[in-house]
Amino acid sequence: MSKKYVYLFKEGDASMKNLLGGKGANLAEMTNLGLTVPQGFIVSTEACTKYYDDGKKLSEEVVGQILEAMKTTEKAVGKTFGDPVNPFLVSVRSGARASMPGMMDTILNLGLNDIAVEGIAKKSGNTRFAYDSYRRFIQMFSDVVMGIEKHLFEHALEAAKEAKGVKLDTDLSAEDLKALVATYKEIYKKEKGEAFPQDAKIQLLESVTAVFRSWDNPRAIVYRRMNDIPGNWGTAVNVQAMVFGNMGDDCGTGVAFTRDPSTGEKRLYGEYLMNAQGEDVVAGIRTPQPISHLEKTMPEAYAQFVKNAKLLEDHYKDMQDMEFTIEGGKLYMLQTRNGKRTAPAALKIAVDLVEEGKLTKEEAIMKVEPRQLDTLLHPQFVPSALKAAKPIAKGLPASPGAAAGKIYFTADEATAAAASGQKVILVRMETSPEDIEGMYASKGILTVRGGMTSHAAVVARGMGTCCVAGCGELKVSAANKTMITEDGKVFHEGDKISLDGSTGNVYDGGIETQEAKLTGDFAKVMEWADGIRRMKVRTNADTPHDAAAAVEFGAEGIGLCRTEHMFFAEDRIAAMREMIVSKTKKQREKALAKLLPMQREDFKGIYKAMKGFPVTIRFLDPPLHEFLPQEEEDIIALAKEMAMPVEELKGIIASLHEFNPMMGHRGCRLAVTYPEITVMQTRAVIEAAYETRKETGLDIVPEIMIPLVGELKEFVFVKKTVVETAEKVMKEKGETFKYLVGTMIEIPRAAITADEIATEAEFFSFGTNDLTQMTFGFSRDDAGKFLEDYYANKIYESDPFAKLDQDGVGKLVKMAAELGRKSRPDIKLGICGEHGGEPSSVEFCNKVGLHYVSCSPFRVPIARLAAAQAVVKQK
Amino acid sequence: MSKKYVYLFKEGDASMKNLLGGKGANLAEMTNLGLTVPQGFIVSTEACTKYYDDGKKLSEEVVGQILEAMKTTEKAVGKTFGDPVNPFLVSVRSGARASMPGMMDTILNLGLNDIAVEGIAKKSGNTRFAYDSYRRFIQMFSDVVMGIEKHLFEHALEAAKEAKGVKLDTDLSAEDLKALVATYKEIYKKEKGEAFPQDAKIQLLESVTAVFRSWDNPRAIVYRRMNDIPGNWGTAVNVQAMVFGNMGDDCGTGVAFTRDPSTGEKRLYGEYLMNAQGEDVVAGIRTPQPISHLEKTMPEAYAQFVKNAKLLEDHYKDMQDMEFTIEGGKLYMLQTRNGKRTAPAALKIAVDLVEEGKLTKEEAIMKVEPRQLDTLLHPQFVPSALKAAKPIAKGLPASPGAAAGKIYFTADEATAAAASGQKVILVRMETSPEDIEGMYASKGILTVRGGMTSHAAVVARGMGTCCVAGCGELKVSAANKTMITEDGKVFHEGDKISLDGSTGNVYDGGIETQEAKLTGDFAKVMEWADGIRRMKVRTNADTPHDAAAAVEFGAEGIGLCRTEHMFFAEDRIAAMREMIVSKTKKQREKALAKLLPMQREDFKGIYKAMKGFPVTIRFLDPPLHEFLPQEEEDIIALAKEMAMPVEELKGIIASLHEFNPMMGHRGCRLAVTYPEITVMQTRAVIEAAYETRKETGLDIVPEIMIPLVGELKEFVFVKKTVVETAEKVMKEKGETFKYLVGTMIEIPRAAITADEIATEAEFFSFGTNDLTQMTFGFSRDDAGKFLEDYYANKIYESDPFAKLDQDGVGKLVKMAAELGRKSRPDIKLGICGEHGGEPSSVEFCNKVGLHYVSCSPFRVPIARLAAAQAVVKQK
Repeated sequence: MSKKYVYLFKEGDASMKNLLGGKGANLAEMTNLGLTVPQGFIVSTEACTKYYDDGKKLSEEVVGQILEAMKTTEKAVGKTFGDPVNPFLVSVRSGARASMPGMMDTILNLGLNDIAVEGIAKKSGNTRFAYDSYRRFIQMFSDVVMGIEKHLFEHALEAAKEAKGVKLDTDLSAEDLKALVATYKEIYKKEKGEAFPQDAKIQLLESVTAVFRSWDNPRAIVYRRMNDIPGNWGTAVNVQAMVFGNMGDDCGTGVAFTRDPSTGEKRLYGEYLMNAQGEDVVAGIRTPQPISHLEKTMPEAYAQFVKNAKLLEDHYKDMQDMEFTIEGGKLYMLQTRNGKRTAPAALKIAVDLVEEGKLTKEEAIMKVEPRQLDTLLHPQFVPSALKAAKPIAKGLPASPGAAAGKIYFTADEATAAAASGQKVILVRMETSPEDIEGMYASKGILTVRGGMTSHAAVVARGMGTCCVAGCGELKVSAANKTMITEDGKVFHEGDKISLDGSTGNVYDGGIETQEAKLTGDFAKVMEWADGIRRMKVRTNADTPHDAAAAVEFGAEGIGLCRTEHMFFAEDRIAAMREMIVSKTKKQREKALAKLLPMQREDFKGIYKAMKGFPVTIRFLDPPLHEFLPQEEEDIIALAKEMAMPVEELKGIIASLHEFNPMMGHRGCRLAVTYPEITVMQTRAVIEAAYETRKETGLDIVPEIMIPLVGELKEFVFVKKTVVETAEKVMKEKGETFKYLVGTMIEIPRAAITADEIATEAEFFSFGTNDLTQMTFGFSRDDAGKFLEDYYANKIYESDPFAKLDQDGVGKLVKMAAELGRKSRPDIKLGICGEHGGEPSSVEFCNKVGLHYVSCSPFRVPIARLAAAQAVVKQK
Repeated sequence: MSKKYVYLFKEGDASMKNLLGGKGANLAEMTNLGLTVPQGFIVSTEACTKYYDDGKKLSEEVVGQILEAMKTTEKAVGKTFGDPVNPFLVSVRSGARASMPGMMDTILNLGLNDIAVEGIAKKSGNTRFAYDSYRRFIQMFSDVVMGIEKHLFEHALEAAKEAKGVKLDTDLSAEDLKALVATYKEIYKKEKGEAFPQDAKIQLLESVTAVFRSWDNPRAIVYRRMNDIPGNWGTAVNVQAMVFGNMGDDCGTGVAFTRDPSTGEKRLYGEYLMNAQGEDVVAGIRTPQPISHLEKTMPEAYAQFVKNAKLLEDHYKDMQDMEFTIEGGKLYMLQTRNGKRTAPAALKIAVDLVEEGKLTKEEAIMKVEPRQLDTLLHPQFVPSALKAAKPIAKGLPASPGAAAGKIYFTADEATAAAASGQKVILVRMETSPEDIEGMYASKGILTVRGGMTSHAAVVARGMGTCCVAGCGELKVSAANKTMITEDGKVFHEGDKISLDGSTGNVYDGGIETQEAKLTGDFAKVMEWADGIRRMKVRTNADTPHDAAAAVEFGAEGIGLCRTEHMFFAEDRIAAMREMIVSKTKKQREKALAKLLPMQREDFKGIYKAMKGFPVTIRFLDPPLHEFLPQEEEDIIALAKEMAMPVEELKGIIASLHEFNPMMGHRGCRLAVTYPEITVMQTRAVIEAAYETRKETGLDIVPEIMIPLVGELKEFVFVKKTVVETAEKVMKEKGETFKYLVGTMIEIPRAAITADEIATEAEFFSFGTNDLTQMTFGFSRDDAGKFLEDYYANKIYESDPFAKLDQDGVGKLVKMAAELGRKSRPDIKLGICGEHGGEPSSVEFCNKVGLHYVSCSPFRVPIARLAAAQAVVKQK
């Protein structure tokens, strides 16, 4: 028996979404629920996959099944294709497994030809309507299916109106439209070399093919990448009998939600237009009526619709987004689906449905998209204030949230302005580690160069600061202190602008913003999630301020505290540089002694902010040259400060140059060369634990994390220094402290030899940022140059730095987790790469048995929800 | 029962080398063969490992067994420690599994104390001898065991001689020496705070401890790294009754080989000294006699020695290196081992032993160290000519062989001089890809900067050209065309120098060199190896010249032809640059069209040189910026050539800058962005195959290798371009050609997902250079900065770029081979990283089932032998 590729509506149900697409499965479900649905059939997603496998051709098998289903449908509806009296017309619509609104193609009124148009004219008693429909169909088919340029038809329409001296389409008479149809058919013939197809079968098969083809159009590819939809899913095609909302005053069409998609409020929410087709509602030429008005206009149809809406929401246990058409007073349901909603609405609906007894808590948390929460966690523009604003430029949405303030062009000026109480937007060509302090001081960051993973973007996301990056259309001069838009408008230091880090928009002037709150429905859903999830959620935080913010968001520890970030601060960088340019161990120890009290204070602040939660401290990681100045004047200043000839200092800087800094002298390699750095850091960690205990009674168990380990002996070497120093400090203090020593797994070799490393390491934290770079063999800083080509050619479908590559990097993570547990069954496993806050990656971490994920403070609620959803999904 | 850590000589045998060390196992074997060996016992290598495991302490268990063995030995010898009449004295010597000559410590005459010295005096009738021995023992024990500085004793000895007004030690009388012993004991007491130990047991245990400790002294660590000896093997300690070759004229000592270790000639070869101890032979104060003279002096002992020598060689089936002592006319054997030999001797001995019927061919090939062959494969200085030469500088021995010629300071001048028939030495600060042609034209390359893996070193090794790199003591000015030595001697362009790439020496003037020959014994051993090995041996070659050389050395194909090397030649670089700075695909195709005929000719030349052997061609790999000029004047010249504003060209160069070029836009990533490059290269490959077949009848099966693949879809994308182009060319030519499309496995992700990639790739070639970089996460160009610290701290014991890291990188290779075969059982597997010519790595490749190894032409014979040895070892 041959495989089934085509399903009548009555043959399917809602569970067959993967095969029939979301739209098709729901049409089938509504049919079987007994609702009035214009009948039709679905060409399955497997037919789409087959289409691509067969070299972009519809196979005979599929064609046969389509024509068969067509006949059955004609019979059911009692109409025939091309019939001069009662012709059958259909719509052809795409419908993928996941909703991809507007991404693929739709053809309406298919079946119209020179004969059927007369049938419609007679049946509707409206020749004008019939020819207008025919005209529209020819244009749509020519454009969407045949790729004939739309403007050819638009020109002809304009010409017809001009000839008649009218302005509106509606001023054209039936005769005018008849003539226009003839012109349209001529255009078609001229472009394609053959007549417009009169055979509805050909129209149908070409249209199905066009929908399949549209699955791979560029905007669909981009949409899929943005929304993590795999390219191999394919789309289904829905072929459905046409009903007309535009055949007279007892006709209409509309869309409605069972609850308010903006607020979640429980009330029927939507709008409709009488005597109109769906596209008219969208086009916005006539103003639709609120759905409640329908009660007056067509009480019967309205009552039926209210009944349907309740039935559907109860049935799907979720807010529904429905489309309907009324033809001759009769209500037809054209679509239902779980409605898209804002984050606040998603939370309210989830909570309400539980309270209404329709959902369990486990079901309810599945109704909220974790990534949506992001918008709730950052300051936002006050909606009313935003309405008046017009963007003056657009960059990349590099770090979400909104910010308004005065612009400053250097980190120092930004810091100074912020200190004097200004709200500051830092505007730079690009940022570097030296700008850290200025970035901290700013409400928003705007850069001209750099992508989503540039320094500015990564640091801003970490800090939860709004950032628009790579805004190349602006001309910025730090020397002149000016920023010039494409329109030539010049902004000077101190001028106000606003940034939207979620859209990339830059606005003139200050727009009012409002802060995020984690209360009400949000808090309730989080509480439910916490009750369900198995994994802990920690945060990546380097300062007491970030740590405190993360605790507010529900973090249960620090998974990554990057000690080097502390060294960039103005009061430390000098001692750090002194350490780096030291020629002897003794000189280096002298410089380190200056850093010790500062680092100890840092740790104390963080311990206190974390209130007893575990704190994982990663020892010095970046290559030392990152701390040295690069500009001539800064070098001269440093040389003076260090009482060192400029040339000598330049020599030291040159000697620290690396060809591939990412793979250079960094991480534990620094600890092997300069064990005295490890000694200082260990002392700071343990002394801070001692003092914190003394001052607050809090018992901190610091987890010392050695970065970039690739080999057991390397770890053992550094651990020895840590343990010896820790024991020495404890002896001095006469007290003991519990602490762990573990490692990042971020080098492929560490993952491969994790069984060996686990004999000595008490915990692993997967550093999936670097692990991704090394596993793929491309540097995050350079990959931007070619990844676009990879997306365009469908080689990669998502950014592996944002979404964990489960097939490659994930395989190493899984291997390391298993090998690690083999040697040390109770080994603590976590992740601290950026993936720790990305829902699909969190799900993967749950699956491979990690104990916690760690992410930036602003992603903590997302991770909490994702971790709970992972548990439910894996049940 | 407790574990056995101490073995009497009679309890061991030669097979126990891992446990007893080489020296100890052979002493045991000789004992059991019935030879006269001074008795004793061995503290095993396991005791050494235990010593380190126990925190550098001899456990009670080991101490007990040592003292027990001591007693047994005293009984066997019939002497007692500290006896006033017949005192027992022993030597304590290290003896690891592999010979580490001079790397660890030896203590002689242990057991002497204030009483025993009198016993020796009486027994030998030589008080002077007795006290001289005691004096030496105190000094040796103090220095080697107790770490007291030697010069303290040497000063005392000098003082004694001065006081007496004599110059030679031998002029000191017994009384003088007695007094000196008293002084030595005072020094000891002053330094250690306690008296010199009189208890032989304490002397013994301290000495054993010292030998164990010496396993980890810095020179032993370096030696092990140079010789690939693992640090966890540990050393054994041999404690053996002393016999004295210096007790009178019927005493003597000597060393001898059963065959000449320089030439392999079959004759007893060695020397001896009468009335002397071993150290006197080494010290070279008296000139030893050739061993044959012993026949006259002591015919009986000589006859016995000749008999022993034959017995031992026949027993061990190998040339023996023996030490003996004659005491009172009686011959004692102190050591035997397989003798070290030169490469020609190793070959001759192997061949002779087979012809003498002592060894099978399989056994014989195991007697030749593959790496030794290296010296036979490059030009060498004529030994007599070298004798007179004195080095003027020393750099790193970056690429072996010898060269003499006139110096030139730029690649262009070197090329021009070579073209006019000069022998050229290229002298540069450092080389870059632009120097390739000049490097090819030169007999030798000398650089001031750069290490063993610098551009100069890597390229020179690939070409088989002699290179001394990183010779920092020379001052070179290309502008002044001068090279100045540390002594201030100035060399100008055209002056002659000579380089030894095996030692790093630079000589003034031209020293005569001689070419390598692969004939005679060498050819015979190679032939045997070829009969035994399973794996094919291919070569990495980019030019017809290299390919032809490799075929001479026995290469059976090309495993890696780097097409980009061809683009650096002066006549191509212009078109290449044009291609790179092109702004449109059309411009790029125009530039590529210029490169096509050149590339086609390259391939034809290589196909012809390879005479029908398979040729693997790797498509363009390096990042494009490597091809662009960096110097201002070159940029200006290029801009002129391209009719492009200089600033625009600079912009393009800047836009190609990469933070981590090693992980940047290179390899197949270029093919994804610019498929037209793949089109050109495929066309060149296939057209060349067509023309070669037409011209020579040779049927070439090109293997097209896509570099840097990390994902199946990426490979599929590039393969599609290759296949489409190949089919187009075949259609044009009206003929078909067999060709394969495969990939390098050099990205960790490729190894991890090899099962997927193998569904489309017809072969894998392991690019272990890059795979090592990415698996360890360090760049070869930068690792030099910290690897020395890793060696010093015993974290790594060998350079992972020279010797394949079997635990990490090897695990990925094995995984990929297995996954690859799972998807495609007949997948062709090879290796083309530098490891392909390194014996232990070759053995690993054989073990995991690769079909071939590929290495630089000059390593082909090494790989052939190593591949054969791998088969024998794995039987």
